[in-house]
Amino acid sequence: MKKSLLALAALTAFAGVASAQSSVTLFGLVDLSLRSQKTGTNSTQTMVPNGHSSSRLGVRGVEDLGGGMRAGFWIEGDMSADDGTAAGQMWRRRSTVSVMGGFGEIRLGRDYTPSFWNHTVFDPFGTNGVGSALNTVSTLGSGATTLVRANNSVGYFLPAMGGLYGQVQIAAGENVTGNKYTGLRVGYAAGPANVAIGWGNTKRTGAMLDDFTDINVGGSYKMGAFTLMGQYAKSDYLASSQKNALVGATMAVGAGTLRASYIRATGSQSSFEANQVALGYVHNLSKRTWLYTTYARLKNEGTAATGARFVTSGSAGAAAAGGLSSTGYEFGLAHSF
Amino acid sequence: MKKSLLALAALTAFAGVASAQSSVTLFGLVDLSLRSQKTGTNSTQTMVPNGHSSSRLGVRGVEDLGGGMRAGFWIEGDMSADDGTAAGQMWRRRSTVSVMGGFGEIRLGRDYTPSFWNHTVFDPFGTNGVGSALNTVSTLGSGATTLVRANNSVGYFLPAMGGLYGQVQIAAGENVTGNKYTGLRVGYAAGPANVAIGWGNTKRTGAMLDDFTDINVGGSYKMGAFTLMGQYAKSDYLASSQKNALVGATMAVGAGTLRASYIRATGSQSSFEANQVALGYVHNLSKRTWLYTTYARLKNEGTAATGARFVTSGSAGAAAAGGLSSTGYEFGLAHSF
Amino acid sequence: MKKSLLALAALTAFAGVASAQSSVTLFGLVDLSLRSQKTGTNSTQTMVPNGHSSSRLGVRGVEDLGGGMRAGFWIEGDMSADDGTAAGQMWRRRSTVSVMGGFGEIRLGRDYTPSFWNHTVFDPFGTNGVGSALNTVSTLGSGATTLVRANNSVGYFLPAMGGLYGQVQIAAGENVTGNKYTGLRVGYAAGPANVAIGWGNTKRTGAMLDDFTDINVGGSYKMGAFTLMGQYAKSDYLASSQKNALVGATMAVGAGTLRASYIRATGSQSSFEANQVALGYVHNLSKRTWLYTTYARLKNEGTAATGARFVTSGSAGAAAAGGLSSTGYEFGLAHSF
Repeated sequence: MKKSLLALAALTAFAGVASAQSSVTLFGLVDLSLRSQKTGTNSTQTMVPNGHSSSRLGVRGVEDLGGGMRAGFWIEGDMSADDGTAAGQMWRRRSTVSVMGGFGEIRLGRDYTPSFWNHTVFDPFGTNGVGSALNTVSTLGSGATTLVRANNSVGYFLPAMGGLYGQVQIAAGENVTGNKYTGLRVGYAAGPANVAIGWGNTKRTGAMLDDFTDINVGGSYKMGAFTLMGQYAKSDYLASSQKNALVGATMAVGAGTLRASYIRATGSQSSFEANQVALGYVHNLSKRTWLYTTYARLKNEGTAATGARFVTSGSAGAAAAGGLSSTGYEFGLAHSF
Repeated sequence: MKKSLLALAALTAFAGVASAQSSVTLFGLVDLSLRSQKTGTNSTQTMVPNGHSSSRLGVRGVEDLGGGMRAGFWIEGDMSADDGTAAGQMWRRRSTVSVMGGFGEIRLGRDYTPSFWNHTVFDPFGTNGVGSALNTVSTLGSGATTLVRANNSVGYFLPAMGGLYGQVQIAAGENVTGNKYTGLRVGYAAGPANVAIGWGNTKRTGAMLDDFTDINVGGSYKMGAFTLMGQYAKSDYLASSQKNALVGATMAVGAGTLRASYIRATGSQSSFEANQVALGYVHNLSKRTWLYTTYARLKNEGTAATGARFVTSGSAGAAAAGGLSSTGYEFGLAHSF
Repeated sequence: MKKSLLALAALTAFAGVASAQSSVTLFGLVDLSLRSQKTGTNSTQTMVPNGHSSSRLGVRGVEDLGGGMRAGFWIEGDMSADDGTAAGQMWRRRSTVSVMGGFGEIRLGRDYTPSFWNHTVFDPFGTNGVGSALNTVSTLGSGATTLVRANNSVGYFLPAMGGLYGQVQIAAGENVTGNKYTGLRVGYAAGPANVAIGWGNTKRTGAMLDDFTDINVGGSYKMGAFTLMGQYAKSDYLASSQKNALVGATMAVGAGTLRASYIRATGSQSSFEANQVALGYVHNLSKRTWLYTTYARLKNEGTAATGARFVTSGSAGAAAAGGLSSTGYEFGLAHSF
């Protein structure tokens, strides 16, 4: 979340950039933690990235086109500092170009899907680390690649209109199974409250029967040092479906923040049933440097052969079969720029 | 073409850089378009990069060595913002180090080949998008990798001498078939006119018989809002040869530019014969942001089993067999920084 | 070695960065040379990176946390400008996050191993180019990946304490053979003298018997324009061991530096025995641009089937069997920013 922080910008005076309002920002984040996980009798001790926030490196900028119009770009790559890798698509976190104005924003490229946001915004752990809300989420074997992001997308974002916000996105499948996507999200934020609903539809092939869908709602409410939050999501694919419910809270304490969440997930098939408790503390060394620790216990109560597991594990994720529990804790350092 | 635009430069006063004349520039371009192509009964709708200009991300700089000498570097990577990939060689667009002075420039590394430039400079579409002049160009099965760039090259560029410009390049093959290259280009630009001749020789192995050669000439002439241009290229490999001729024009209209080209290509063998018509319009939202649309029709008139096709297609290029035509149009947004 | 040189820093006044002491630096180096090598009757002419210094591209920064504490990050990738590749782990040269203070530095991530430093610091050629001290070093078939760097490491560095310096490092193996590492280094630098001892232990599996160990000492002494240096290293794996001894010198001459080294390596097994003589000259065009030339002759005097060879060869390294000699020379240009 904590973005930017270094602007190469404001170079007009000495670098001959045409527009005084233009800016280009080099930004990034390095997050490494020491993690211990145990599933059944299997235990691992690893160094992993992204325990608090997703490690990244990127460049972004905005140009003032005049007349209330702006152009912008955003290129952001993944980076696993534990071993220096930037695996897969180099700028996989986001690579977009936009035109913005009073009408809102039109955005082209690889971007987050509208149906992803509620999963992370209304999770005290922001879908990072052992306590991530994504641990119990599944694409139900559909092969959908759009749980978090989509390639080849065109998105439209509402302009600022009081507390109302919203976006729609269509992504071309280009004949790749699981890539064709349509989604939207609408929310309202005012004072201490924030609520949103999201929906996404991913086509495996051309037949509607095969679509993977994810509908979710979330909300948060701030009361002094406390912020309460919750989310509920239901996903479907063929005869399978799954429901995920989360309640959580954060509490500011001095220079830090306590975090807690409880998740319950149930599947219509395969006797899938899991719950997770996560507790953590983040200590702010500055506005952009954090020490943190998180503990999570994930229990598979169903008999499904493939149960829930810690998915954001970096180089070593322990899979948990039916009836098994996973316990993990981590201690890390994150720094953004 | 539209390069730079952000200079990190002029840091002397506050960053302790030795030379006041030194500069380092972070630069890039994001171009995405929605494209529809049809070849025979096969049609595709895709999002592709590079419809107007090649998407890129790079760093370059120049240092004043004193006494009229300068050192420079240029590291530039490819970037396909439709899916965030930077496939293949990371800094594949260019990675060079140079020494420059009154004698000209000596440049080492991966760079454009001299025999490439006329193909793109004298194409109204700059070898990008559905209307690219490269659609009908072939390496005739030679395996030459040097149509656009060469690895392991040493280049020499003439200094500014009136309107005369020129370069020679030698690239080590390092035992890779199709990598060993020698080329040169000489041109003259004065007032409204610009003409150039290029030649390149690529060795498959040690035997002269196996060389792939590309000789080409091009020219442009500016008359008010119009710029006329043309190019002619002949390539040879063993008993095969091919000829490509292009005539084109650009016309400034208000805040935009109309573009048009006609290409005719014929091969000595395999009954290869193709022609292409391309029309387009670029609307300048600013000096570095463009909306554009292009239409192209590429017709294979020969009976060759493998005909010409839209090559700069990003993730989906439709191949056209003998007798088949391809039609494509696109609408895109490009932003450079 | 010559790092940094461009600071994006000092942006407080015009970019809204929170802390006045924060800085982010984009840095890099491009080094290309023309190299000719001959081993027995096999000769190659290539362009290679890293003849003088390792080509790289990176971003690093330091943030003042107040109270004498600082946070820092360092992300640095490899770059072979001869063909524009950045092969393997993208940020493989270093990717770390640190907390620093009066207690020293705690550093997490992928970093150099303590047992590597003496190999390069006390080599007149800095383990780069045809004359590198690494040409005769071996991991004795152990599969250790930690000769230069380690993934998943936690390191501690002593604070400045007179001339004493030191570091320890532990790297998690994460079930990858050859990755689990423990090492330390302690040194003392005062006036013209600098000496250090390093030790590293790499586990193949859990059994102590299988460890690869590298213990080394090195020193240098500056006398006017001369700097004398030497190093001695012994490595062990199962019944195999190897000893490497180097003596070398550098001498400042005008705007340049002469370099020379002699290496003798002997193995306990396989009749491995090799020696190397290297001579070179570096001409400083500026503080950050160099022309250089190096000559090296590496002779395998033993009868081992696999002998020593020029390892830092970029795209073409000639292996030398027992009894064979390799001769190499190169001429290059390096520029850092």
